[in-house]
Amino acid sequence: MATIVVEVMLKAEILDPQGQAVAAALPRLGFTFAKAVRQGKRFEIEVAGTPTPEMLADIEKAAQTLLSNPVIETYLVRVEA
Amino acid sequence: MATIVVEVMLKAEILDPQGQAVAAALPRLGFTFAKAVRQGKRFEIEVAGTPTPEMLADIEKAAQTLLSNPVIETYLVRVEA
Repeated sequence: MATIVVEVMLKAEILDPQGQAVAAALPRLGFTFAKAVRQGKRFEIEVAGTPTPEMLADIEKAAQTLLSNPVIETYLVRVEA
Repeated sequence: MATIVVEVMLKAEILDPQGQAVAAALPRLGFTFAKAVRQGKRFEIEVAGTPTPEMLADIEKAAQTLLSNPVIETYLVRVEA
């Protein structure tokens, strides 16, 4: 069993109201560390056995078509240790 | 400028309908690699300068109170390279 992580974030040039809401809420709670916040999605996909190159290519394809919207989002596929 | 990443996932014992919807959609699109899918949130927090231990303690506190619901979610704070 291995876990593949797909991270989906809005592109930098796309407005991120969720991230802005978090960035606005932090100082109200007394937290002053944040200059900017972006919010995205994280998928943990469990696969059987060790991931093969074909499987990772398939996951890339799924990340492009189902998990992200390539017009406004970027994605990153990582194999978790 | 450094980026701190906070990853928030539902606890394993909590039902994850979003993840189940993705897991159900994958085979319909011809992808058969996934045994299970969990969906969570990912926050990218930009901070000025290098993160200090006090700043990281503050971010932990914000992750507990604002970014996650500790009753049903777990969080992980990572400093991005």
